[in-house]
Amino acid sequence: MSIEKRVVVLFSGGLDSTTLLYHLRSMGMNVYALGVWYGQRHSRELAQAELICKNGGFDFNCLNLSTLPRIMKGSSQTDPTIPVPEGHYASDNMAITVVPNRNMILLSLATAYAISLKADVVAYAAHLGDHDQYPDCRQVFIDALAGAIRLCDDHPPTLSAPFSGLSKAQIAQRAGILSVPVHLTYSCYNGGEVHCGRCGTCIERIEAMHIAGVVDQTEYTDTEFWKTVSKVYRG
Amino acid sequence: MSIEKRVVVLFSGGLDSTTLLYHLRSMGMNVYALGVWYGQRHSRELAQAELICKNGGFDFNCLNLSTLPRIMKGSSQTDPTIPVPEGHYASDNMAITVVPNRNMILLSLATAYAISLKADVVAYAAHLGDHDQYPDCRQVFIDALAGAIRLCDDHPPTLSAPFSGLSKAQIAQRAGILSVPVHLTYSCYNGGEVHCGRCGTCIERIEAMHIAGVVDQTEYTDTEFWKTVSKVYRG
Repeated sequence: MSIEKRVVVLFSGGLDSTTLLYHLRSMGMNVYALGVWYGQRHSRELAQAELICKNGGFDFNCLNLSTLPRIMKGSSQTDPTIPVPEGHYASDNMAITVVPNRNMILLSLATAYAISLKADVVAYAAHLGDHDQYPDCRQVFIDALAGAIRLCDDHPPTLSAPFSGLSKAQIAQRAGILSVPVHLTYSCYNGGEVHCGRCGTCIERIEAMHIAGVVDQTEYTDTEFWKTVSKVYRG
Repeated sequence: MSIEKRVVVLFSGGLDSTTLLYHLRSMGMNVYALGVWYGQRHSRELAQAELICKNGGFDFNCLNLSTLPRIMKGSSQTDPTIPVPEGHYASDNMAITVVPNRNMILLSLATAYAISLKADVVAYAAHLGDHDQYPDCRQVFIDALAGAIRLCDDHPPTLSAPFSGLSKAQIAQRAGILSVPVHLTYSCYNGGEVHCGRCGTCIERIEAMHIAGVVDQTEYTDTEFWKTVSKVYRG
C-alpha cells in the first residue's frame, strides 16, 4: 500500500492554485487538478490551466458547466453584457465580480471527484485577500462546508485550504521558492492575449509579486496603472 | 411588496419532486423548478420534467452538467457500462446506484439560482426512504449543508426538505390529495418508453402508490415482479 496521499485541487490556472499544485506536490502528495468551465467570460484561463499541468506533469481534468449563466444574472464574471470594473480588488465596485455560491459549487464537484478517486483531501487556494469581498471565502463558511463534506459519504475526503492564513504576497513568495512557472499562470478578468494590468486581479497580482520581491515575467498591457491605485507601491 | 415567497425546487420529473412543486404552490409559494442533466443514463426524466412544468404552469430551467461522468467512475447512474440492478431499492445491490455527493452538487447549484432570483427558499424532495441508502440524504447531512448555505452569501436562501419526515407512501398520498398528474412523472432507472417495473425506483414507486391506495395510471412493462420482492404487498 502506498503512503502517498491523493489530493484533488480546484484549479483555475491562476497564480494561487498553480502555486498550490506545486506546494502539495512538494509535500509528497499525488495531485489531481480539476478545472471547471462555468461560463466565465473567457476560456483563456482554462487553456492555460491545461498547459500548466502538461508542463508540470500534473493530472488534469475539466468539467463543462457552461450553462451556469442561464441561472445567474448580474455577475460580470459570467454575463458578457456587464463590463469588468477597473481598479483595486478591495474596492466596492468589485461586488459585481461575485458569482453566487461559486465555492460550494466547485468544491462539491471536487469532492465528488475525490470520492470517486478515493482521494484523501480536496484542496483549494482561498487566501486572506479573498475573505472580505466574497462571503464564501470566509473561514466560517469554509468550516461549515468542511463539516457538510465530512458527512456526504461513508469515506469522505477532508477539505483543506492550506493558504487560508496567507496573503497573496506570501503565496507569490512561495511561488518563488517552489520555482512555479508564474509566467504560464493567467489571472486577468478581461481574457486578452496579454494581462490588461487594470482589472482587480491584475492589480492584486502585480502588487503581490512586488511585495514578495519576486521577478514578474508576466507581460501587462498597462504597466503603470497599478501604481496609481496601489497602497503598497514604493517607487 | 409582494408577500409571495419565491422557492427554487430541485426537480427531476419524478414522483417526489413533482409532488413537491404542487405542495409548495398550494402553500402560496412562487415556484421555480431547476433540473440538472448530470450525465444520467437517459434523458427521459428531464424531457418529462419539462412537460410536467409546461402542463402545470411552473417556471422551468435546466443546467447541463453532462461531463460529470468524466470524474465519476463506478455508478450505474452515470456509467452505461454498469448494468442497473434489479430488485428492491433497500437491498445492498443498490449501492451501485449512488452518484457521489450528488445532493451537495445539485443543492449548491439550486442555491446559486436562488441567490440570483432573490428567492427565500431552496427546497428538495428528500424523504424517509432515502436515508439509509444514500449518506447525503441523512438528516445530519442536510442540517450541515443548511448551515453552510446560511453562510455562503450575504442574503442566503433557507434550505428546506419538507418531505424529510414522510415516507414515499405519504408523498404518494399527498400527490393524490393535490391532484398531481402522477402519470406524467417518470422514475424508472432504465429510461425506456414505459417504466420497467423491475428496477429499485419502479418497485419503490409501485409500493408507495399501493400503500397510499392511490390509483396508479402509470404503465409498467412488468406488473407482477414487484409482488415477488415486496414486503408490503397484500394480494
